[in-house]
Amino acid sequence: MNALVATNRNFKLAARLLGLDSKLEKSLHIPFREIKVECTIPKDSLATFVGFRIQHDNVRGPMKGGIRYHPEVDPDEVNALAQLMTWKTAVANIPYGGAKGGIGCNPGELSKSELERLTRVFTQKIHDLIGIHADVPAPDMGTGPQTMAWILDEYSKFHGHSPAVVTGKPIDLGGSLGRDAATGRGVLFATEALLNEHGKSISGQRFVIQGFGNVGSWAAQLVHEKGGKIVAVSDITGGIKNSNPNLVKHVEENKGVKGFHGLKTVIYSSRLHSEALSTGEMQMRLKQSL
Amino acid sequence: MNALVATNRNFKLAARLLGLDSKLEKSLHIPFREIKVECTIPKDSLATFVGFRIQHDNVRGPMKGGIRYHPEVDPDEVNALAQLMTWKTAVANIPYGGAKGGIGCNPGELSKSELERLTRVFTQKIHDLIGIHADVPAPDMGTGPQTMAWILDEYSKFHGHSPAVVTGKPIDLGGSLGRDAATGRGVLFATEALLNEHGKSISGQRFVIQGFGNVGSWAAQLVHEKGGKIVAVSDITGGIKNSNPNLVKHVEENKGVKGFHGLKTVIYSSRLHSEALSTGEMQMRLKQSL
Amino acid sequence: MNALVATNRNFKLAARLLGLDSKLEKSLHIPFREIKVECTIPKDSLATFVGFRIQHDNVRGPMKGGIRYHPEVDPDEVNALAQLMTWKTAVANIPYGGAKGGIGCNPGELSKSELERLTRVFTQKIHDLIGIHADVPAPDMGTGPQTMAWILDEYSKFHGHSPAVVTGKPIDLGGSLGRDAATGRGVLFATEALLNEHGKSISGQRFVIQGFGNVGSWAAQLVHEKGGKIVAVSDITGGIKNSNPNLVKHVEENKGVKGFHGLKTVIYSSRLHSEALSTGEMQMRLKQSL
Amino acid sequence: MNALVATNRNFKLAARLLGLDSKLEKSLHIPFREIKVECTIPKDSLATFVGFRIQHDNVRGPMKGGIRYHPEVDPDEVNALAQLMTWKTAVANIPYGGAKGGIGCNPGELSKSELERLTRVFTQKIHDLIGIHADVPAPDMGTGPQTMAWILDEYSKFHGHSPAVVTGKPIDLGGSLGRDAATGRGVLFATEALLNEHGKSISGQRFVIQGFGNVGSWAAQLVHEKGGKIVAVSDITGGIKNSNPNLVKHVEENKGVKGFHGLKTVIYSSRLHSEALSTGEMQMRLKQSL
Amino acid sequence: MNALVATNRNFKLAARLLGLDSKLEKSLHIPFREIKVECTIPKDSLATFVGFRIQHDNVRGPMKGGIRYHPEVDPDEVNALAQLMTWKTAVANIPYGGAKGGIGCNPGELSKSELERLTRVFTQKIHDLIGIHADVPAPDMGTGPQTMAWILDEYSKFHGHSPAVVTGKPIDLGGSLGRDAATGRGVLFATEALLNEHGKSISGQRFVIQGFGNVGSWAAQLVHEKGGKIVAVSDITGGIKNSNPNLVKHVEENKGVKGFHGLKTVIYSSRLHSEALSTGEMQMRLKQSL
Amino acid sequence: MNALVATNRNFKLAARLLGLDSKLEKSLHIPFREIKVECTIPKDSLATFVGFRIQHDNVRGPMKGGIRYHPEVDPDEVNALAQLMTWKTAVANIPYGGAKGGIGCNPGELSKSELERLTRVFTQKIHDLIGIHADVPAPDMGTGPQTMAWILDEYSKFHGHSPAVVTGKPIDLGGSLGRDAATGRGVLFATEALLNEHGKSISGQRFVIQGFGNVGSWAAQLVHEKGGKIVAVSDITGGIKNSNPNLVKHVEENKGVKGFHGLKTVIYSSRLHSEALSTGEMQMRLKQSL
Repeated sequence: MNALVATNRNFKLAARLLGLDSKLEKSLHIPFREIKVECTIPKDSLATFVGFRIQHDNVRGPMKGGIRYHPEVDPDEVNALAQLMTWKTAVANIPYGGAKGGIGCNPGELSKSELERLTRVFTQKIHDLIGIHADVPAPDMGTGPQTMAWILDEYSKFHGHSPAVVTGKPIDLGGSLGRDAATGRGVLFATEALLNEHGKSISGQRFVIQGFGNVGSWAAQLVHEKGGKIVAVSDITGGIKNSNPNLVKHVEENKGVKGFHGLKTVIYSSRLHSEALSTGEMQMRLKQSL
Repeated sequence: MNALVATNRNFKLAARLLGLDSKLEKSLHIPFREIKVECTIPKDSLATFVGFRIQHDNVRGPMKGGIRYHPEVDPDEVNALAQLMTWKTAVANIPYGGAKGGIGCNPGELSKSELERLTRVFTQKIHDLIGIHADVPAPDMGTGPQTMAWILDEYSKFHGHSPAVVTGKPIDLGGSLGRDAATGRGVLFATEALLNEHGKSISGQRFVIQGFGNVGSWAAQLVHEKGGKIVAVSDITGGIKNSNPNLVKHVEENKGVKGFHGLKTVIYSSRLHSEALSTGEMQMRLKQSL
Repeated sequence: MNALVATNRNFKLAARLLGLDSKLEKSLHIPFREIKVECTIPKDSLATFVGFRIQHDNVRGPMKGGIRYHPEVDPDEVNALAQLMTWKTAVANIPYGGAKGGIGCNPGELSKSELERLTRVFTQKIHDLIGIHADVPAPDMGTGPQTMAWILDEYSKFHGHSPAVVTGKPIDLGGSLGRDAATGRGVLFATEALLNEHGKSISGQRFVIQGFGNVGSWAAQLVHEKGGKIVAVSDITGGIKNSNPNLVKHVEENKGVKGFHGLKTVIYSSRLHSEALSTGEMQMRLKQSL
Repeated sequence: MNALVATNRNFKLAARLLGLDSKLEKSLHIPFREIKVECTIPKDSLATFVGFRIQHDNVRGPMKGGIRYHPEVDPDEVNALAQLMTWKTAVANIPYGGAKGGIGCNPGELSKSELERLTRVFTQKIHDLIGIHADVPAPDMGTGPQTMAWILDEYSKFHGHSPAVVTGKPIDLGGSLGRDAATGRGVLFATEALLNEHGKSISGQRFVIQGFGNVGSWAAQLVHEKGGKIVAVSDITGGIKNSNPNLVKHVEENKGVKGFHGLKTVIYSSRLHSEALSTGEMQMRLKQSL
Repeated sequence: MNALVATNRNFKLAARLLGLDSKLEKSLHIPFREIKVECTIPKDSLATFVGFRIQHDNVRGPMKGGIRYHPEVDPDEVNALAQLMTWKTAVANIPYGGAKGGIGCNPGELSKSELERLTRVFTQKIHDLIGIHADVPAPDMGTGPQTMAWILDEYSKFHGHSPAVVTGKPIDLGGSLGRDAATGRGVLFATEALLNEHGKSISGQRFVIQGFGNVGSWAAQLVHEKGGKIVAVSDITGGIKNSNPNLVKHVEENKGVKGFHGLKTVIYSSRLHSEALSTGEMQMRLKQSL
Repeated sequence: MNALVATNRNFKLAARLLGLDSKLEKSLHIPFREIKVECTIPKDSLATFVGFRIQHDNVRGPMKGGIRYHPEVDPDEVNALAQLMTWKTAVANIPYGGAKGGIGCNPGELSKSELERLTRVFTQKIHDLIGIHADVPAPDMGTGPQTMAWILDEYSKFHGHSPAVVTGKPIDLGGSLGRDAATGRGVLFATEALLNEHGKSISGQRFVIQGFGNVGSWAAQLVHEKGGKIVAVSDITGGIKNSNPNLVKHVEENKGVKGFHGLKTVIYSSRLHSEALSTGEMQMRLKQSL
C-alpha cells in the first residue's frame, strides 16, 4: 500500500469518525495548490529534473513541510506527505498548515556544485509561492542544513534577507538549537508515552531500530541514554540482530551499522515506511508487540 | 490513443527527424511549470473543483493557450494541449510560448453566477503566474468572451486595469474583430492550401464537417461562401449524411444540425480529436481521401 | 449636537488649553486621508453601498480604529470617531494613530452571504491603504470577529497570510483572549477610578446601564461581580427602571432586557452617544450625579 | 444651481430616457472611489491644504480627468466634474473612464517653490491610486504643464520613469503637440457643427467670448482665423462689448482684455459655468440665439 | 596613514594570522556594493552634494552602520568604516553585516530646512537599497536622532511605516533608551577591562580625553562616576592639560572645554583617529602607557 | 589625457559657451548614481570581480549605455563614457539619458560558462537599478548579443519576460535588424557629412582605419561600398600603411589585418581613443586633414 493510498484511507476513516459532510471532506482533502516545475542545470551537457511542491492547506497558518531529493519522489507521495503535515500541525495545535516538496533526483550522483545549482534553480521557480506568510520549507530525505542555506540565499536575492523562509538551516544562519535531534527525540517521546500507558518505561526494554540515518541514530542514542537496550539496527546497507553490548558503542562511534561484525545485507524497500505510519499506527504496532 | 500519448509520439518523431540530442529533447519535453489549484465556491453548501494551468515553454515569449471548462479535463490532456501550443506558435513564428489550462467542471450544471465565482476563484489562485509578459489565457471549450471578461476583471483587482492579460475578450473590452471566426477560418485556409497542392479548389468539392460548435459552423459557413458543398455534418447530438441542398440553410438558420429531418444519433467520443490532429495529420488524411 | 461638532468643540478646547499655534492646530485637525469607495454586490439584481475609511493621523504609529456597518454611517460621524481614536491612542501612550471606517448598510437586512460579499468587496477597495504598518481595522457596531475573519482572508489574497492586519478576529485565527469583554471592562475601570476619587467603590453603588449590546452587557456583568447593583438597563428594544433583584439574573440568562416583565419600549436615538462622550465627559457626568 | 446639482439632474434625465433600472442607475451614479488627503508644506511656519481625487468610473478603461487648484474647489464640484468625464469619454468612445481632482488653495498666493512642494506632497499622497492603468491626471484651472511635470517627476520616484502617468505635460517631457489649443479648438468644432445644422458657417458671424484664459483666447483666435467676428470678450477682470476691429488685435497682443479702452469691470461668478454646461446644453443655447 | 590604508593593513594582518586563502581574502575584502548618488536641493539657487553608501558584507545578516555629514567624507574613508562595521558585528557576534555612508557637506553651513531636504533627497536615492532585511543606517558624525527621523519618515513614504529601518532615532519614534551614551559607555568598558588585566581599576586613575563630542563627553562623565580623574580634555576648539578639579564640573556644565580658563588652541587632524583604531590597537596603546 | 579628463574638459568648454551658471553646471556634471558591486563566481576555487554602473542623467528619459568587459575598466573611464552618452542622446534628440557600465575582467581568460555566471551575478546585483523606464544596457567592448541574452534572461527571473531591458540582443530574442553595423554606419554618415561640407564625397577619397573590431571593419566595408579607398588599417595586433588594392579584400576575407603581408606590430594604447573623441572632435581632425 503506497503512501497516498494509506493517507487517503486514514483521512476517510477520520472523516467518518468526525461525521464530516461530504463536501467539507472533499474540500479538506483536495490540496490548496500543486506545483511541478522544470529544473535544468548544466551537467555534462544539460540535465533536466522535475521539482514538486504540494501545498495542502493554509487555513490554520503558513504551510510547513520538508523538501526531499530522491529518485523515486513522485506527486502522489508528496501529496500524501503534504496532507500528513496539515494533520500533524493541527493535532499539535501550532498555527501552521501542511505542504511537502521534492525533486526527482539522486543526490548521490550529483556533485555539490550541481546540487547547489539544482537547488537554486528550483528556488527560482517557486520563490513566489513560498515565504514566511505562505509556505516555509524544511530539510527532509536527501536534503539538510546546506540545502536550506542555498534556498535561503537564493530566496533572499528576490525578497531581501529572509532567514525565516526555511527552518532547519545552519545554526550560524539562525537555525534552531536541538533541531538536529528533534525527529529522533519525537520517536523517544512517543515510545515513552506508549510504554507509560502500559506501566513500563524505556529503561530495561529492548529496542530494534529500523533505519539509521539522522532520525534512527538520534533515537538510538536517546533511548540508550534513558537506559533502553538496542538489540538490532538496520539501515540501507544491511541489518544486524544482535544483543552484543558493543553494538551501541559501535553505532555511536561509527554513526551507522556499517562495518560491525555480523552485518547481513538485507534487501527491503522501507523508504517511506516510518513517515507514512501515523503516530497512531506506530502506537498500535507497539501495543501489539507489548 | 489519448491526446498526451499522441502528442508525445509526434514530438519524439519530430525530435528524431531533427536529430535532437536526448538531453535537449528531455528539456524541451518537460513542461516549464504545472499548477493545480483547489477552487471552492458556495453551491448548495460548498463545491470544490480542481483547476489546472500547464505552462509548457516560454523561451520564445510569453506563454499562450486556452482555458477549458469540461468534466473530463485532466492534467494529461492539458499537458498535451500545452505542448501543442508551443509547437504551434513556433511553427507560425510568433513570439509566444505554449500553455493550456482548465477546470474540471460541467459548465452546464453551474448557474451563470456560479460560473462567475468559479472563474474568479481560479483567477485569484493563478493571478501571480499569468500576465502579459508571462502567460496569456484565451477561451477554449466551455469558455468564451464572458469568461475572459471575468478573468480580466479579477486579475485587474490585483494588477490594475490589464486588458492584455487575456485574448478572446468581448470587443467592448478591447477584444479583436474577427476572433470569433478565426479557428474556423484556419480550417478553411488549411483545406484550401491542400486542395491547391492537388490542383483543385474549394469550389465544387463536397465536404463533411465533424463537430459543429464555434469552429465547425464557421468552417461550414466559410466553405459554403467559397462554393464548397456541405454534404454531411455531425455534432454532439447526432450526425446527418445528406446531400440535401437545404442542409446548409438549415445549419445557418439553426446554428446546428439538431432538428433537421433525417437526423441519426450516433455515439462517438471525438472531443479532443480535431485538436490532437496536427495540421500535418489533417493534411495526410485529406490526401488519402483525395 | 452631533458627533463631529462635539469632537471638534472638544479639540478646539484642548488646543486652546495647550496653547497650540493655529497652523499646527489646523494640521492636527485635518485628517491624513479620507476614502469613500463604491461597493456593489449582487442582491436581487444588484445593490450598491458606500464604504468609508477616514485615516486621521499616523504620526505616532499605524492607524487603528473600528469598522461599523449601520444605515446612518456618514463621513462626518466617521471623521469624528477617527479623530477620537488619535487622541485615545495618544492619551493611552500606545504607538498607534487613529482611523475609523464603515459601510452605510443595514446588516439586519443582508444575509450572511451578502454580508460576506460586501465585506470582501470593501476590503478589495481599500486593501492597499490598510496594513500592519499603515492602518489596522477592528470590529465596531454591526461588525464582529466574523467580519474581521472575512477582511483578513480577503486581504491575505493580495498580501499573503496577514493575521495582524485586523484585531478583534476569532481566537482560532490569532485573536486575543479577553478582547470580547475589553470595552465593557474599560467602562468598569473608568467608573472605579472615578468612584475612588470620591472615596467610594463599586460595591454597594446602584447603576443604570444605557445600551445593552456587547459593551453594556459585559459592563453590567463586571459591575455585578464587583458588588455593584444594576437597577435599570435599556437597549434598542426598550428600557427598565427596576430594582428587582431578578433583573441581573434575567440579563445574564437572556443576554438582554427583552422579555423581562415590566419592559417599556422607549424611542430614543442614542446610537453614537456613549462613544462620542470622551472619558472626560463621562467622568463629568458621573461627578455631577455623585 | 451648482455643478453637482446640474450634473445629477442631467444624469437622472438621461437615465430616464435610457430606461435604466434603478439599481444600475445607482451603481453608475456613485463614484468608484473618493479620496481626500491632507497636504502640509512649510509656508511661513506651516500650511495645510486639502487635496481631492474623485474617481468616478473605470469600467471602460483607466480614469481620466484634470486637477485644479482653486480656493473654492470642493468635493461636490469635483464629484460633478468626475462624472462628466465619464460621460464625455463614453460619448467620444475612447477607452477611458472619468475622474477629477484638485487642491483647495489659491495658486496666486503661493510662490513657485511652494506650489512645487504642494504638488509633490499631493502626489506622494495619491501615487498608489493613480497610474497609466488606473487614473491619468491632466491640467485644469490653476494648473498647467509645469504642474504635470512635478507630478510626473514625483510619481516617477515611486514607480520609475513614467511619462504616461499624466497628459498635458511639457512637449520636452513627451507632451502632445496641439494640446495647448485643444479645448479651444473643441469650442470651435462644436460651434461650427451647430451653425452647419442651421445652414450657416463661422465666417461672417459675430461672437461673444465669455472667459478669456487658455480656452477662450484659443477659441477667439481660431474663430477669428475662420472668419468669425469677435464683438465682445470678458474675463475675470472685466468685459467689453465692442465691435471695434482692433479688439481682436488687442486680444492677440495682450493675451487678455485687460487694458483695452472701454473695459468695464463686471462682477460675476462664472467659474464652473462653461464646463458644467454639457455640449448639449451649449448647443441648446446657441440654437435659442440663432 | 589614512583610514582605508590602516584598515586594509589590519585586514591583511588578520587574514595572514587566520591563514585565509587569497581568493577568500579578496572576496571578504571587496565591498558587496558601493553607491554614490547625486543629491540636489534648492539653496540660494541650487546646490548639489554627493552621498555615499558603502555596503561591505551581508553574509551574517542585514548591514549596519552610520551615516555621517562632513565636508571631507570620501569613498575611501567610508569604505574603511564599512569594513570595520563588518568586523565589529562579527567580533561581537551579533547577526549583522557592515556598511557606512555619508554626504559630503558641511552641516554647519546648511539651515535645518536645507538639512531636512538634503536628507530626504538622499533617502529617496537609496531607499531601495536599505531596509530592515538589507541595511540599517544609524547616526554618526554630523547626524543625530533628528536626521534618523527624517530618513524614517521619507523611507516610510515608499515602504509604509517602518520604524526599524534606522537605529538611533528619537525615543518618541521608537528609539532605544541608553543609545545616547552607548558609544561613550563602550569606551568605559574597554578601559575597565584593560585596567583589570593589569590589576587596576578606574578609580584613582588619571585620564586624558581626546575629542569631546557625544562620545568623549559621555566617556568623561562615566569615568568620573566610577572615580576616575579627568586631567585633560581636548576638542576641535582646543585642549587643556590641567588637573584643576573644576575641569570636570566645567565640562559637565558647558558640555565642552570651550571657555575654560587656560584653554590653548591646538591644530590637529584627529577626525577619524579614534574610530580607525581597533579596540585591539587602543588596548595596545593603553598597555604601552601603563 | 585620459577619458575622464578629456570629457570633463569638453564639458567645461561647452558650459562656458552656453553660459551655464556654476550651480547648474555642477548639477549636470555630477552623475545621478554610481554603483559598484562585488561579483563572485566559482572559478578554480573562487573568483571575485568588481562590476560598475554609472548612471549619469535621466532627466530626458531612461538612461542608455553599454556594458564593457575589460581588465582596465575603471570608474573614471565608465564615468566619462556615461557622461558622453547623456550628451549623445541629447544632441541626437532621442528621449534617453546616459549611463555606462562594465566589469573589470579579461573575457579572454574566462570560459563561456564562467562568463555566463559572471554576467548573471552582475545582473542579480543591479537588476533593481536598471529597467525599461530606468536604464537600458547595451553591448560594448568585450560583450555582445550573447551577453545581452544572459542579462535579459536573468533580469526576467526577477521582473517577468522583459525583452526591452537591453538593446543589442540576438534577433531571435527581439533584437533590431541592422544593429550589428550601426556604429560603423555612424562613422560613415559623419564622414560623409563632413566631406559634403567641403564639396567632396566618399568616392575616390583615401581612408585610414584605426581599430578593426566590429566598428572599424563595418566602417571599412561601408566606405568601400561607397567607393572610398582603404589605404591603411590597424588593430590591436598591428598596423599596415599600404595602398595595395588587395588590402580591402584581405580585410573582408579575414575580418582583420592579421596575416596580411607587410604587417608591422605597433605598440599603442588606443583603447578608448575613438569613443572619447566626440563627433565634433572627429570632424575637427578631419577638417584639419582636408
